[in-house]
Amino acid sequence: MDALVYWVGMAAVAVNAVTGVLDSGRKQMDLIGAMLVGVATALGGGTVRDLLLDRNVFWVVDQTYLVAALGTGLLTFFIARALPLPPKLFLIPDAVGLALFTIVGTQVALQWHAPWLVASLMGVTTGVVGGVLRDILCNDVPLVFLKGELYATAAWVGALALIGLQEIGVPSVAASWVAMSIVLLLRLLAMRFHITLPAFAQKPRP
Amino acid sequence: MDALVYWVGMAAVAVNAVTGVLDSGRKQMDLIGAMLVGVATALGGGTVRDLLLDRNVFWVVDQTYLVAALGTGLLTFFIARALPLPPKLFLIPDAVGLALFTIVGTQVALQWHAPWLVASLMGVTTGVVGGVLRDILCNDVPLVFLKGELYATAAWVGALALIGLQEIGVPSVAASWVAMSIVLLLRLLAMRFHITLPAFAQKPRP
Amino acid sequence: MDALVYWVGMAAVAVNAVTGVLDSGRKQMDLIGAMLVGVATALGGGTVRDLLLDRNVFWVVDQTYLVAALGTGLLTFFIARALPLPPKLFLIPDAVGLALFTIVGTQVALQWHAPWLVASLMGVTTGVVGGVLRDILCNDVPLVFLKGELYATAAWVGALALIGLQEIGVPSVAASWVAMSIVLLLRLLAMRFHITLPAFAQKPRP
Repeated sequence: MDALVYWVGMAAVAVNAVTGVLDSGRKQMDLIGAMLVGVATALGGGTVRDLLLDRNVFWVVDQTYLVAALGTGLLTFFIARALPLPPKLFLIPDAVGLALFTIVGTQVALQWHAPWLVASLMGVTTGVVGGVLRDILCNDVPLVFLKGELYATAAWVGALALIGLQEIGVPSVAASWVAMSIVLLLRLLAMRFHITLPAFAQKPRP
Repeated sequence: MDALVYWVGMAAVAVNAVTGVLDSGRKQMDLIGAMLVGVATALGGGTVRDLLLDRNVFWVVDQTYLVAALGTGLLTFFIARALPLPPKLFLIPDAVGLALFTIVGTQVALQWHAPWLVASLMGVTTGVVGGVLRDILCNDVPLVFLKGELYATAAWVGALALIGLQEIGVPSVAASWVAMSIVLLLRLLAMRFHITLPAFAQKPRP
Repeated sequence: MDALVYWVGMAAVAVNAVTGVLDSGRKQMDLIGAMLVGVATALGGGTVRDLLLDRNVFWVVDQTYLVAALGTGLLTFFIARALPLPPKLFLIPDAVGLALFTIVGTQVALQWHAPWLVASLMGVTTGVVGGVLRDILCNDVPLVFLKGELYATAAWVGALALIGLQEIGVPSVAASWVAMSIVLLLRLLAMRFHITLPAFAQKPRP
């Protein structure tokens, strides 16, 4: 089980690196710029979580994550220059990555004895902050904050479900699988049926 | 006194969450995007201070702050959609929040035995970094850096006054009240009489 | 030797503060905004390195760095308002600063027993993150990520050379000088002969 989570987590890091590199293509970045944006996208969420919890940063301790992010970034750069990869190709792997990052992030925070609401937000942080960093580095408003199909919301619901299930006595492994399925399902349903949250209207800066 | 500071601090967190959510309205954000921008605005300054000083992050230890930020953000979102809140309404609470955040931040850094200049900048950080994060997340140049009525300057003068007063023997509580009044007064006077610092001229990127 | 590194490091901090302040001139910032951007540019790289490695932040421990950054920023602001400083004036000091920051950052990470790939990226982080923060605060895409003469690449090659040289038994001091020369030479050659990495083409956001 632990080995499974480790390697699925590694895959999620790689998928995030792909989306970071693809996104940097809009901004005339060069190879190293694209790779660094890829690394920030892949490792940013877990890094911010570890800093906030005052844990050792996960990829400083185990640089396999860094190798995965850099290697994937390098490959993606050259593949994407040769043949245009439609970003839609990565929507489902990205949803799996979101589910996994969220649940792992929440579990890590719970083991660190963070209070429950903090732990749920640490799950959301692990899931979405990589993409927020990517958009900041590309000088865009973070996509995850804008009106669109549920993303952070799916993560948050799953994180709260995980905490609730463990609170009522469901074993940690079972609760994790259920919560991961909730995130994934919510995200996929939101994409399929264009489920969105209410939004603000655009107004000029006063 | 400590309980007073605690609850006034909580109020300052809530006021900052309001300004974050109102500001996100310019960018077509949805409910969760607005709430997360509100949380970053409310908790960002103290978080960066705690990370730089290697303290436990204040809202990870006491999640009441997080509840205050999230709850206020939620309320603000729905109220602001129903009736447009003029941001000017919050200028005076915001000035109170700036004064309080600055003085609390400076005190925390001094108790942590930070050198005096560092401590004064930690006060400024606590007071203004939330708004800087808000503007970065909304993809704007941080308002506090632009030519405008004294803001960070008011905070810095107050922080230095606090340190100077304690250095010459004024008791901590008295010095805090005086320094808070200085920040508040400077900010209010600057708004009333449009007091600004010298600015650079706008030039295109070379 | 240690004293030499210390004071050359201080000079690099000052040079970075200058570039930060000059850059802020494009955005109608006021005195304190420009100074804070200068401080973030000068101290940002080492700060992120120290946070990621869970070390004490260098300028919180020794506020001389902060004095250097603030003092240089103040001077630069008033000099640059009186007579326009061409940013090109600082390209060579900036290259020296990049070389020094990179090698010091890598050495710090190695002493902290970071794995080698992490250590090399900590060198790059120390060298370039200040400029990334400057560009984020000025609401631009970070210059270092865009197609242009080698910058982060020069830093990374030098950091890897340092690690390789020490691995094959070259003493630390000698390896540092060689690696620093590599960064500096690569950067200067890249500027002279417009050496760039391959880049992505600009595409609109899908």
